[in-house]
Amino acid sequence: MPIVNIQVTREGTTPDRDSVTAEEKAALIKGVSELLLNVLKKPLESTFVIIEEVDTDNWGWGGLPVLEYRGKVAAKKATEE
Amino acid sequence: MPIVNIQVTREGTTPDRDSVTAEEKAALIKGVSELLLNVLKKPLESTFVIIEEVDTDNWGWGGLPVLEYRGKVAAKKATEE
Amino acid sequence: MPIVNIQVTREGTTPDRDSVTAEEKAALIKGVSELLLNVLKKPLESTFVIIEEVDTDNWGWGGLPVLEYRGKVAAKKATEE
Amino acid sequence: MPIVNIQVTREGTTPDRDSVTAEEKAALIKGVSELLLNVLKKPLESTFVIIEEVDTDNWGWGGLPVLEYRGKVAAKKATEE
Amino acid sequence: MPIVNIQVTREGTTPDRDSVTAEEKAALIKGVSELLLNVLKKPLESTFVIIEEVDTDNWGWGGLPVLEYRGKVAAKKATEE
Amino acid sequence: MPIVNIQVTREGTTPDRDSVTAEEKAALIKGVSELLLNVLKKPLESTFVIIEEVDTDNWGWGGLPVLEYRGKVAAKKATEE
Repeated sequence: MPIVNIQVTREGTTPDRDSVTAEEKAALIKGVSELLLNVLKKPLESTFVIIEEVDTDNWGWGGLPVLEYRGKVAAKKATEE
Repeated sequence: MPIVNIQVTREGTTPDRDSVTAEEKAALIKGVSELLLNVLKKPLESTFVIIEEVDTDNWGWGGLPVLEYRGKVAAKKATEE
Repeated sequence: MPIVNIQVTREGTTPDRDSVTAEEKAALIKGVSELLLNVLKKPLESTFVIIEEVDTDNWGWGGLPVLEYRGKVAAKKATEE
Repeated sequence: MPIVNIQVTREGTTPDRDSVTAEEKAALIKGVSELLLNVLKKPLESTFVIIEEVDTDNWGWGGLPVLEYRGKVAAKKATEE
Repeated sequence: MPIVNIQVTREGTTPDRDSVTAEEKAALIKGVSELLLNVLKKPLESTFVIIEEVDTDNWGWGGLPVLEYRGKVAAKKATEE
Repeated sequence: MPIVNIQVTREGTTPDRDSVTAEEKAALIKGVSELLLNVLKKPLESTFVIIEEVDTDNWGWGGLPVLEYRGKVAAKKATEE
């Protein structure tokens, strides 16, 4: 009876999208359920998967909202090169 | 000081609704708070209840998004009968 | 497919116990599963319940570890009476 | 690698707002990340913070939806004075 | 920056074990991190995975502690065959 | 009524300790409760804080159990210098 909770930022994987697509969600659900079957022998029908998309304003990293933090890291990298 | 987190799919209990109603949420809050009072003697005012409604796309069961999984189970049942 | 997570402090309901008993846990599981059946028509077999017992050192209330906070509230009440 | 999850009701801190502002969220992210640095020596860049805003209908306290509970507490206080 | 939380019962995959092994945990961590890389292009180093093992007494299914529920389902199956 | 959940690895801040101390936990509880008071005007007595210590085997980063990942990062740094 595993329960898997996946939290990601609400963003697209390509510039024209602003969230995770239904296909990507289905791939996550399939992949993680099969992983639990393979590693722990948990039958597919006993695994629940919950995907939570979190607005980037609501996600903090490095003491900053995540978009600011990524900008800072990218700027630092550019300076170092 | 119990904290109860209830995750359900965002669906109605009747065909004309597409989410849990405020009345149903109030009934869940009341019921679970009274349960903690009866079983563990926790005063009502020290229990927090959080209800999370999860889009069906974001809920996986049986390795599939939940609506697909339910369809598959229903089809299998129909075949067996 | 509801998932219910119940967090309580690791304490007994009587002075001779230091944790929630197996019987109390079973009563919580039964009660909350029946509540979801009654309020949202969720079949019993599709509800998962997870009970987490949290050490009192790890639970904060009122800006303090919970045992200290309860002591402070009790002392304040005693003074007021 | 701490993970901090902050759940609050979706409400503004002033009457003209109906949710937490981006500035307030950034202040929470900054404050909690610095706290983990100061208390546990966790580098800022290894802390993740997730803020979840919960609709008041979905938050229970005292066996009631939170707005009802607050109203009841306020009414009781008014009577006592 | 995905965060993945995996909750499973504290049980072994073979009769001589009573919990998930370190190797199995490493396989879960590797598998789920690679899944997020493949599906959502999330770099491995930005994914956190938390595995929680839950005592069987603390896990409810079908309105019962999970071991009781499994016993009931097994007994029902045996009767039907 | 904020609820704050803090997950950290079960490790000490000095070599002679193998977990977070009660004093450090109290400092986290105090700090985060005051932060919510300062930023969102939430009264101290309405904030719950839960601290979860997670075994290092159960925490994954970079596709590896966290101690292995840290070792790998440290080795890479040493090579680069």
